[in-house]
Amino acid sequence: MAKSRFEYVRTYEQDTMLLPNTYIVIRLDGRGFHRFSASYGFEKPNDKRALGLMNAAAKQVMKQLPDVAGAYGQSDEYSFVLSRQCRLFDRREAKLVSTFASTFTAQYQFLWPEYFPATPLDRNMLPSFDARAVLYPSLREVRDYFSWRQADCHINNLYNTCFWTLVLRGGLSEHDAEQALMGTNSGDKNEVLFSRFGINYNNEDIMFRKGTVLIRDVGADTAADLGEPQQDKSKRQAEREEKKKRKAEIAELHVDVIGDEFWTDAGRWIS
Amino acid sequence: MAKSRFEYVRTYEQDTMLLPNTYIVIRLDGRGFHRFSASYGFEKPNDKRALGLMNAAAKQVMKQLPDVAGAYGQSDEYSFVLSRQCRLFDRREAKLVSTFASTFTAQYQFLWPEYFPATPLDRNMLPSFDARAVLYPSLREVRDYFSWRQADCHINNLYNTCFWTLVLRGGLSEHDAEQALMGTNSGDKNEVLFSRFGINYNNEDIMFRKGTVLIRDVGADTAADLGEPQQDKSKRQAEREEKKKRKAEIAELHVDVIGDEFWTDAGRWIS
Amino acid sequence: MAKSRFEYVRTYEQDTMLLPNTYIVIRLDGRGFHRFSASYGFEKPNDKRALGLMNAAAKQVMKQLPDVAGAYGQSDEYSFVLSRQCRLFDRREAKLVSTFASTFTAQYQFLWPEYFPATPLDRNMLPSFDARAVLYPSLREVRDYFSWRQADCHINNLYNTCFWTLVLRGGLSEHDAEQALMGTNSGDKNEVLFSRFGINYNNEDIMFRKGTVLIRDVGADTAADLGEPQQDKSKRQAEREEKKKRKAEIAELHVDVIGDEFWTDAGRWIS
Amino acid sequence: MAKSRFEYVRTYEQDTMLLPNTYIVIRLDGRGFHRFSASYGFEKPNDKRALGLMNAAAKQVMKQLPDVAGAYGQSDEYSFVLSRQCRLFDRREAKLVSTFASTFTAQYQFLWPEYFPATPLDRNMLPSFDARAVLYPSLREVRDYFSWRQADCHINNLYNTCFWTLVLRGGLSEHDAEQALMGTNSGDKNEVLFSRFGINYNNEDIMFRKGTVLIRDVGADTAADLGEPQQDKSKRQAEREEKKKRKAEIAELHVDVIGDEFWTDAGRWIS
Repeated sequence: MAKSRFEYVRTYEQDTMLLPNTYIVIRLDGRGFHRFSASYGFEKPNDKRALGLMNAAAKQVMKQLPDVAGAYGQSDEYSFVLSRQCRLFDRREAKLVSTFASTFTAQYQFLWPEYFPATPLDRNMLPSFDARAVLYPSLREVRDYFSWRQADCHINNLYNTCFWTLVLRGGLSEHDAEQALMGTNSGDKNEVLFSRFGINYNNEDIMFRKGTVLIRDVGADTAADLGEPQQDKSKRQAEREEKKKRKAEIAELHVDVIGDEFWTDAGRWIS
Repeated sequence: MAKSRFEYVRTYEQDTMLLPNTYIVIRLDGRGFHRFSASYGFEKPNDKRALGLMNAAAKQVMKQLPDVAGAYGQSDEYSFVLSRQCRLFDRREAKLVSTFASTFTAQYQFLWPEYFPATPLDRNMLPSFDARAVLYPSLREVRDYFSWRQADCHINNLYNTCFWTLVLRGGLSEHDAEQALMGTNSGDKNEVLFSRFGINYNNEDIMFRKGTVLIRDVGADTAADLGEPQQDKSKRQAEREEKKKRKAEIAELHVDVIGDEFWTDAGRWIS
Repeated sequence: MAKSRFEYVRTYEQDTMLLPNTYIVIRLDGRGFHRFSASYGFEKPNDKRALGLMNAAAKQVMKQLPDVAGAYGQSDEYSFVLSRQCRLFDRREAKLVSTFASTFTAQYQFLWPEYFPATPLDRNMLPSFDARAVLYPSLREVRDYFSWRQADCHINNLYNTCFWTLVLRGGLSEHDAEQALMGTNSGDKNEVLFSRFGINYNNEDIMFRKGTVLIRDVGADTAADLGEPQQDKSKRQAEREEKKKRKAEIAELHVDVIGDEFWTDAGRWIS
Repeated sequence: MAKSRFEYVRTYEQDTMLLPNTYIVIRLDGRGFHRFSASYGFEKPNDKRALGLMNAAAKQVMKQLPDVAGAYGQSDEYSFVLSRQCRLFDRREAKLVSTFASTFTAQYQFLWPEYFPATPLDRNMLPSFDARAVLYPSLREVRDYFSWRQADCHINNLYNTCFWTLVLRGGLSEHDAEQALMGTNSGDKNEVLFSRFGINYNNEDIMFRKGTVLIRDVGADTAADLGEPQQDKSKRQAEREEKKKRKAEIAELHVDVIGDEFWTDAGRWIS
């Protein structure tokens, strides 16, 4: 088609391409979810419906975007791992982060009524998510990334469980609860829960304590194929693999990802 | 809070900050809207409801994000201009593009039933948008950017109007219509419309021909203030200005942005 | 020529292009010049030969690279300003900074014997410089950049002049001189110099106090031409201009760049 | 020290940090070496002195910058590989490429008289080099990078050997030699050399055919230590290692790097 003399403004576009052959982690975070969760009356310290909705939206994202090998979610955040060989959008950073943010948002909002049937969304308080992409050259770092987020989940959830128990069952003001927990370590917090409220933290819902792992269960054979360098594959092979990935079940796990066990057969879901 | 030994993976995060004191244009594009529009039966060559929905969603984005000075939309794309002084999210690129994509998506989906009351969204065909950020050092380039998009709107719309008129009223197959238009210039296309179908292209809906401009009408006095370097302003001043921007009306215009007229009082809406 | 199967490693190359239509400042810094200057017995607080050598090398850089409009140097650093229209190396950042660092180094080393005839360079202590590129969207910022470096020159030189006068003429140890100056302001330092040593700081060599400005004196007519957008010029025009720039005299100035005077006719040397 | 109000211009500086835990390859290229080599009468197709000078300069760079594990050079280019763990200059790209370009230039110029004692450098034709940095996430790619450059060396050198033999011994004009070689493959070129001039290409100087590899010979024990993640090392350990690297011999090899043999004990020099 004809081009205008204004076309030159395109030369100012600068695409950042993410380094080839590195794992891409895309982490989404709820924007202003403190206010958002208060506005819709999320239960404290954890709202099972809200977490279920996050997980359901993330699963839909994985179905739409078969390059995602696995994901980890907790609270109002979700991290998606793309395999080293991923060539989605030519690995353009802006396109990747905006598409993930948009797709997740659409799913979250669409699924909302299933999880909060009695609470319609308000136009001035719609859910939104920002996203960032981080590159990891080796599986070791991807593993440590998952561990980092799960350790974060544990630390926050133990704190929040104590805090809200002190407030909701102990009758403390939020300010007093904060003071009471200042300077305490994990052991102290477990002790507060147990001795004052008879709560064994380890019996709390494992989804609250460990967060949620989603993995695409492609089966051992396919996994081995996926691991081969993309450049050595025919177009047909690539298409066949994508089809398999689209059809693969997405498993939802609430497990420890810090120890070795989860990773010993990591080859099954990530390459 | 306590930090885990996995914290080191954070050092792999690399934030791209957009150069200070340059205009930021964030352009959103519908993902797979060819298929999307077919799936929901959008009218050809233009669907007034669909364009109205784009405009309504864009207006909401401008209400949520007062740093946007103006916007231009056509077809399934929308471009938002942020003022040079904008410091939103410390000008982090990933945060900006993902937030715009997410916020626009949420609004588009929320407003959908108002514009397509008879056609509920399907979970396997939700709307999504990608986004990119482009920097322009001077107002001249911002103006040329708007002109570029409007020239693009004109070229595409003239073509599409011809094409669909040949198909829908002329009875040509899509393939034959394509052949008929191959190699034609603007004059030829106007002639086809006029001589064969009695259509004067210039009488077509101006929104189809020119696209849509949204500007935040802050009033002349405030505009002058906004133009001053951000760093010279007190926090209080900045807050007062943000309030004014939030309350300002957003005007929807269907005008020529290539000629001088629109820009002579550009100071009113952009700085 | 034939290509090998290893060619794919090129796809990992990522060129950063500097945003068009912005001023580029490339600042070079001597690497380890504290040790370097000690090793070759530079005079303290300023060595006129060393500064002369820096200026001479910078002039040669400007002769080799006609895209440089002007430069500012002090101590072991030099900043080169490239015009907004500059297209050198397609504005690739790595190519620009490496070429400036290499060219300056070559000139500095080549000219060394002229300035230090009695002190040949030692192979284990050769001069080297690192470089960075910074973008500025407007002339205001380029001006403030020059002011920033000159203010830095002033602050450091006043301190160093005091420090070394206390040591060399006052007989203080370096440690005692440092202690004596701790917490003093400009006025105090002027007073120390004047009352104890009869030195009026303002009579010190103006090159020490103000640093050195180099500008390419292209004449008013050419300057006006240079200011026009590059894209509007014929290839022939561009070549004629480059020739003029290559032949233009490079003026060496030791003047105040913080006040308005130097910039009122800035159009003469920068566009 | 006191800060001026111009300090804000620093906020425009944007440092690109190279992704951690990836190999960094820094490739230097002679600027305008076609003209440079003609100007100083380099022998065709290869000048042993010129290549010797490149190698000597590269060795000095490795001595100055102990983070370099190995290097590969041919013609007027040299590539330096930094280990994954390298933290030199916080992995800032501009600082790395400019420092390598500057250091190499200084050494090249300093060593010039040893290799070209009869031909002093001319101030209008000083050597200079640009540089770029490329990241590789795995050793496989580093290996393929070396192979790529060596395949390039082979292709160019076979061509140049034919070309210059046709010109210098066959009496062809440069234009006719070019025509004669157009469309020929490796076999053809070997045949031209052998049948017309009795030259067996494989007997040509191996440095011309294979280029030059430089590796830091740290010994097997140290190599194992170097391979450990940097973050797990004490500062003392790191210093000890750096000392070892500085003292290590740098071996100059002219060997095939495409086959497996060179890489089987790669652990000895790269980690």
